[in-house]
Amino acid sequence: MISHDTHLRVRYGETDQMGYAYYGKYAEYFEVGRVELVRKIGIPYKEVEAKGVMMPVSELQVNYKRPAYYDDLLTIRTSVNERPRSYFLFEYEVFNEKEELLATGHVKLAFVNMEKMRPVRAPQFVLEAIDAYIGSKD
Amino acid sequence: MISHDTHLRVRYGETDQMGYAYYGKYAEYFEVGRVELVRKIGIPYKEVEAKGVMMPVSELQVNYKRPAYYDDLLTIRTSVNERPRSYFLFEYEVFNEKEELLATGHVKLAFVNMEKMRPVRAPQFVLEAIDAYIGSKD
Amino acid sequence: MISHDTHLRVRYGETDQMGYAYYGKYAEYFEVGRVELVRKIGIPYKEVEAKGVMMPVSELQVNYKRPAYYDDLLTIRTSVNERPRSYFLFEYEVFNEKEELLATGHVKLAFVNMEKMRPVRAPQFVLEAIDAYIGSKD
Amino acid sequence: MISHDTHLRVRYGETDQMGYAYYGKYAEYFEVGRVELVRKIGIPYKEVEAKGVMMPVSELQVNYKRPAYYDDLLTIRTSVNERPRSYFLFEYEVFNEKEELLATGHVKLAFVNMEKMRPVRAPQFVLEAIDAYIGSKD
Repeated sequence: MISHDTHLRVRYGETDQMGYAYYGKYAEYFEVGRVELVRKIGIPYKEVEAKGVMMPVSELQVNYKRPAYYDDLLTIRTSVNERPRSYFLFEYEVFNEKEELLATGHVKLAFVNMEKMRPVRAPQFVLEAIDAYIGSKD
Repeated sequence: MISHDTHLRVRYGETDQMGYAYYGKYAEYFEVGRVELVRKIGIPYKEVEAKGVMMPVSELQVNYKRPAYYDDLLTIRTSVNERPRSYFLFEYEVFNEKEELLATGHVKLAFVNMEKMRPVRAPQFVLEAIDAYIGSKD
Repeated sequence: MISHDTHLRVRYGETDQMGYAYYGKYAEYFEVGRVELVRKIGIPYKEVEAKGVMMPVSELQVNYKRPAYYDDLLTIRTSVNERPRSYFLFEYEVFNEKEELLATGHVKLAFVNMEKMRPVRAPQFVLEAIDAYIGSKD
Repeated sequence: MISHDTHLRVRYGETDQMGYAYYGKYAEYFEVGRVELVRKIGIPYKEVEAKGVMMPVSELQVNYKRPAYYDDLLTIRTSVNERPRSYFLFEYEVFNEKEELLATGHVKLAFVNMEKMRPVRAPQFVLEAIDAYIGSKD
């Protein structure tokens, strides 16, 4: 449905003593991919919060297949394959420069009304932005 | 089978601008709990690597239920509920001081022979340590 | 004048591929020591922000003498050697379990009025808390 | 002498609850700038370690002038203004998109012989790479 490739290099501070990119860093990599996809669709994350909606993460899953090493140039492929309803699902694949698949995973974001601090359905302006983006691709 | 509670405080640098402990930090919290449980059983992580076995993470799952805030004193409850075979499964619950459940999750570690760089079954000294620990509790 | 020892263990995710605690992590260690010292004096950091004062860091210096390794139990010795005026100076020494000095450094915090977003002098309640704490030690 | 601009965006996970890029993250930003400058000169960091030389950080200083916010596109300006002798000095300026100066600082790296684990002078291949790079600019 919607897919976006983000590129980033593994920083020295992100490696651990095994010489791998630390497993917890993938959450950050996923977030970078998510933000860029959301920006591309035309929903600047900053604006979402300005409109009184928070999108906290409700689920994270990562499956690690091969390690990423220091200075590796990674591709974070972020995909949205369904229209968000009560949550926003982002699916991920991470590749290195040899196009080896290093990891897969997903993140679910909830929509939370900041005033009432309770879950809400996907706001209309998010759905419209997604539909407009998909329409513009046809 | 085996369970261990670790306590740690959310650091300022671990919060994000939502005012929550950043979702990626739970991977680090889980790791702290895991290391302490493994130490308690009598398998110092450092020694595992010294014996030519690495235990890279193969899967991470976190379900976020309530946010953790700066300076919250968290309890990371780490459990091992089955004898490891091809991987080592750690299950998690995270609580705040009010004993509210903030998150659940699990981590699977693989066993990797460092020389051949391939997965192996759980090493004998790991299984023995677990059995001895459980036996000592009976 | 005032000194406080905090103990923390180097986490796996804090090491880098040199096998050392990553140099950027000391900023976080310093912050943990600072928060604990400030709490001990009786100025809970959380309250400071609630009173409309932010204490952003204006300067960080670290001198690295010896590496810290994974699982090392560190002592972060935080000292306040002068009454804060336009900034709050924290001085640091980091030791390992062998009492080897691993690093020294300091952090300067500014006092910022959150409403006007400009630097202010040390608030009265901070100075009083310090004086009361020192007085109680005499 | 040598200067290099690196661009990076502040990640969500790098902010703290003040809404600023966490002060400890600048160490990581500096490292990214340093690695890119060193790569540009033609000294791939990876190779340095392969030649038995480590370059641990011996000093870090950061002066924070203005905060960086989530999603800000930062310019990390890294400069080498003197030929390295017993240490390698990198000087830094950090700007936001409005070209406001957010921070200045420096990092000193030592040269360490990995076999003997002791400080050494700047290796010849490092000096030659610097001289060749400067020569090529004349």
